[in-house]
Amino acid sequence: MSEKIRISLDAMGGDYGVEVVLPGADLVLQRCPNIEFLLFGDAKVIEPMLEEYPRLKQASVVHHCDVSIGMDEKPSQALRKGRGKSSMWNSIAAVKNSEAHVAVSAGNTGALMAMSKFCLRTMSGIERPAIAAIWPTLRGESIVLDVGATIGADAQQLIDFAILGGAMARSVHGVSQPTVGLLNIGVEEVKGVEEVRTAGKMLRDLSPPNLVYSGFVEGDDIGKGTVDVVVTEGFAGNIALKTAEGTAKQFAGYLRAAMSRTLMAKIGYLFARGAFERLRAKMDPRKVNGGVFLGLNGIVIKSHGGTDAEGFAAAVELAYDMAKNELIKKISDDLANYHRGRFSEAEEN
Amino acid sequence: MSEKIRISLDAMGGDYGVEVVLPGADLVLQRCPNIEFLLFGDAKVIEPMLEEYPRLKQASVVHHCDVSIGMDEKPSQALRKGRGKSSMWNSIAAVKNSEAHVAVSAGNTGALMAMSKFCLRTMSGIERPAIAAIWPTLRGESIVLDVGATIGADAQQLIDFAILGGAMARSVHGVSQPTVGLLNIGVEEVKGVEEVRTAGKMLRDLSPPNLVYSGFVEGDDIGKGTVDVVVTEGFAGNIALKTAEGTAKQFAGYLRAAMSRTLMAKIGYLFARGAFERLRAKMDPRKVNGGVFLGLNGIVIKSHGGTDAEGFAAAVELAYDMAKNELIKKISDDLANYHRGRFSEAEEN
Repeated sequence: MSEKIRISLDAMGGDYGVEVVLPGADLVLQRCPNIEFLLFGDAKVIEPMLEEYPRLKQASVVHHCDVSIGMDEKPSQALRKGRGKSSMWNSIAAVKNSEAHVAVSAGNTGALMAMSKFCLRTMSGIERPAIAAIWPTLRGESIVLDVGATIGADAQQLIDFAILGGAMARSVHGVSQPTVGLLNIGVEEVKGVEEVRTAGKMLRDLSPPNLVYSGFVEGDDIGKGTVDVVVTEGFAGNIALKTAEGTAKQFAGYLRAAMSRTLMAKIGYLFARGAFERLRAKMDPRKVNGGVFLGLNGIVIKSHGGTDAEGFAAAVELAYDMAKNELIKKISDDLANYHRGRFSEAEEN
Repeated sequence: MSEKIRISLDAMGGDYGVEVVLPGADLVLQRCPNIEFLLFGDAKVIEPMLEEYPRLKQASVVHHCDVSIGMDEKPSQALRKGRGKSSMWNSIAAVKNSEAHVAVSAGNTGALMAMSKFCLRTMSGIERPAIAAIWPTLRGESIVLDVGATIGADAQQLIDFAILGGAMARSVHGVSQPTVGLLNIGVEEVKGVEEVRTAGKMLRDLSPPNLVYSGFVEGDDIGKGTVDVVVTEGFAGNIALKTAEGTAKQFAGYLRAAMSRTLMAKIGYLFARGAFERLRAKMDPRKVNGGVFLGLNGIVIKSHGGTDAEGFAAAVELAYDMAKNELIKKISDDLANYHRGRFSEAEEN
């Protein structure tokens, strides 16, 4: 049997803490038995509840932590209060100490990112980390980053994001040469902000290995799945992500209203119920739960704070996939290749 | 009978020119007979086609122009080539010369904005114009601006957008005290870019008349209809708009696929066809066609370049509504009130 994937969980994170984390982890064990969990949090709370999940209990080690981080604590506050002793910090530290391959938390994004940066540090050659989202499209799934780790990004940082996203696409979606687009407000070379235009020129000139630069893409290209990886700075990326979520909910609301309005519509709904259920599953935001922190010396996955066990399970499965496919190794290789390429180019000139 | 609303049309604009402009205008005349059209473009093309629309012919005056602006011409190029003689320029100039109340063009956005700025100039107290979009929401419709006129905006420009959008909401949606939110990546006061935070503080302190500042909103608030007016700079605004369009198309694609997959689904579709048609009408992007150029001494409406007659008609109806409801007067009043308020406040200090 191959080596187990070790996943550390911040058992106290999110709106519901253990009540979502434990059943979520248990669901994943059903599908991927090859996991060992490290559960960080209040042992008095975790252990009694673990009795209800014998399979999970079997596959887990509980690590008691006195402190847990609230959903509205500021990053700086959380760091002061929780460094070295909170369930959030210790779940990340387990990755740093190679006790776990990957960490998952449903805790607050700001605190989780601050602790991840402080504990894991950015990879050599990367200035700022990014949060990558997996985005369902008409063609399958794409990766969009950054969706909110940092505001603003210069051209070099956008290129870093392209490399990070490219490595993630190779790791998660198994594409050998992922296509990468820069999010802009027009596809012509003259359009958009300076940083994006410069990044476009650099990507065209440098052509980093293991990815294909496809030029600028616009907002509607994300849902179409025009490229495998969409690169943007965090402010616009976060607004795009949330706007898409809002639009999906809006459409679902319209559909519900339309289907309950007349008797004929209700009868139609009964016949097509299977189709509606497939549609609902397809649009289910829980399925693509999990923001991936990229650019650090270790992988941390942020689950939605308000998700349920099914949603948390999706985030854990994503963590499992990325650990299994050696995301960090792929990123390091791509970065090394890229910097080697730049270096030799500089020597030639 | 009340005075007619005079609308100038760039008959050559858009992917299809007169073939969409004339039937579109004719559709509007059916619903609002109280319009006089000024048709700018190649008389040799317009006049023979006008014979097919006797009602429109009756209500129109053709103004021949030698030049028309292509869909891919750069703004500076278009200005050089078309100033004073193109159908686009002359339709705008008709607003400047008070021959028309409002102008509509399906021509290219960059050229149309450049000519509008050059010909009409920004209103006193407004530094940069904005493009406002009418956005369908779960609660009705909201106004989102800027969706791409300019990239980046400082705090004062965001406040100008709030006043412009507020006046438009009063004019188009008839709300006496529209609520206004600033688009951000979190609702807490500490979040987001400097300009947005400063604008938030200023809006709270100054509380411009005729609008209610509701604080920060996130991307998913747009579709919910949390506020009447969403204010953002043009890069993020354009990406939000296009992303929402992409998501709507994506959802429609999923729905179509789900409904044609099994026999039961197909039967269900037949029963619920009325409901699906209502849904399609609700999601129809043509219905909300029309970007409104705000902040200039006159109103110009940009129709999608690729729309059909029904879509162009929606843009013309929007123009009609705004002329009838005296949008420009409302904006001037709001700006005067706002600046008077700031001035007396400065005196008090």
